[in-house]
Amino acid sequence: MSLSYVHGYDPVESGRLDDQARTLEDLLHHDTRYPAGSRVLEAGCGTGAQTAILARRSPDARITAVDIAAASLAAAKARLDALAIGDVHFEQADCARLPYADNHFEHVFVCFVLEHLAHPENVLLELQRVLAPGGSLTVIEGDHGSFYCYPQTRATRRVVRCLIDLQAAGGGDALIGRRLYPLLARARFDAVRVAPRVVYVDPSRPAWEEGFSRNTFIAMVSGVAPAAIDGGLIDPATWRQGIEDLEATIGQGTFHYTFFKATARNPL
Amino acid sequence: MSLSYVHGYDPVESGRLDDQARTLEDLLHHDTRYPAGSRVLEAGCGTGAQTAILARRSPDARITAVDIAAASLAAAKARLDALAIGDVHFEQADCARLPYADNHFEHVFVCFVLEHLAHPENVLLELQRVLAPGGSLTVIEGDHGSFYCYPQTRATRRVVRCLIDLQAAGGGDALIGRRLYPLLARARFDAVRVAPRVVYVDPSRPAWEEGFSRNTFIAMVSGVAPAAIDGGLIDPATWRQGIEDLEATIGQGTFHYTFFKATARNPL
Repeated sequence: MSLSYVHGYDPVESGRLDDQARTLEDLLHHDTRYPAGSRVLEAGCGTGAQTAILARRSPDARITAVDIAAASLAAAKARLDALAIGDVHFEQADCARLPYADNHFEHVFVCFVLEHLAHPENVLLELQRVLAPGGSLTVIEGDHGSFYCYPQTRATRRVVRCLIDLQAAGGGDALIGRRLYPLLARARFDAVRVAPRVVYVDPSRPAWEEGFSRNTFIAMVSGVAPAAIDGGLIDPATWRQGIEDLEATIGQGTFHYTFFKATARNPL
Repeated sequence: MSLSYVHGYDPVESGRLDDQARTLEDLLHHDTRYPAGSRVLEAGCGTGAQTAILARRSPDARITAVDIAAASLAAAKARLDALAIGDVHFEQADCARLPYADNHFEHVFVCFVLEHLAHPENVLLELQRVLAPGGSLTVIEGDHGSFYCYPQTRATRRVVRCLIDLQAAGGGDALIGRRLYPLLARARFDAVRVAPRVVYVDPSRPAWEEGFSRNTFIAMVSGVAPAAIDGGLIDPATWRQGIEDLEATIGQGTFHYTFFKATARNPL
């Protein structure tokens, strides 16, 4: 009996090739690049984490990054100055009332912003106004309800629930990823396409265990401990157990989270 | 201002290309093909739904399909006879006590089987025994806990929970997808790789709304109505509401489910 393994033919080899060292940046941004000279608006740039990625991937696009918070904007500007890449102009502005003429931009990019808004529909309409007919909109959001793990315990569910409830109490929606399609379709964008961007972590992917499970997701959950405990959403013992159980998945269990990336076109 | 859309460069176009008419068969099976002449075991073939796919995709592999249930096996044989494809031999056997010599097969394929077993570890050890050193194992399972939708209601959660609880009551695990990695790693398979295979459905994918949301998932849930209601897991009104709410996602909402495909190698 012969075992003939042909490269790209054998099931094991093909699984390995599918899964080469993809980082979260690759997962979310690998297919967003803007042509040289095109006018791109990043709406809600915060401290510039995504702006830096945009500028690196589209160094010759003319990027305008706006945020309502002066302090965030200063941090974003400092970050981009230090990197010395791209063609980025910063401006303080409210995404629901942008200081730009109709049809000013060829592309609009929004990442981790709509989840914080009580009325994302209003911002989408304003983005539509400043976007040229036929221009592209790209939206990336998470969905905390997509999270699960193994082993999963009552306490892991409770701590993640705190995150969702706190965001809802602040007027946001931590489950917005699953409703990007209806949001964009109802705002009458054309060619709405939404694709899940799935993070799957197990011990064969130690870079994801550290980079995503521990340093992104568990860190984010841990950050709301004071608000969750002081706000009476959870008792301290259950909180500690939940964080401990989440950490216990690393090295032996699995961790699952889905981002959503939407693209659409402004009607002609 | 010019809008220059380059094929494969523009975000909207690139999203569309990523998403060309993929069927569930493509999603789960596109990367499983076995070389001509190789000996493949399908453990737990049931009525032959996966056997037909295997035979079509690997028409020159020598496939042995086993199941413990004579009636299922007869249906599988009739299905493959009608299709007249592939080289498939059927045999009645218990996957935990297979009538084959050590190292007999070069490849083993298991799909939607481990979820029904109280002790999948035992079957994995038996599959390891009949698999040649260095041979490949492929396992595909779902995970009902990966399901969510928009809009999501208390009733949609309740009906899906019935499915999970009924499978647990029968000794199975409807959440097995998330633990394929630990299962195979603990069984001491080598090169264990698990990849999520994600079904994402929205109104831009009507074939998936009909083929998956309605005719696969909602149909599967609906099938356990008698067991769930007669067994006292749920009251009839909540059940009806849950099914109605699931159906209401079609045409306007979104639907999410993840399968898991694992590949591994028998130690040398």
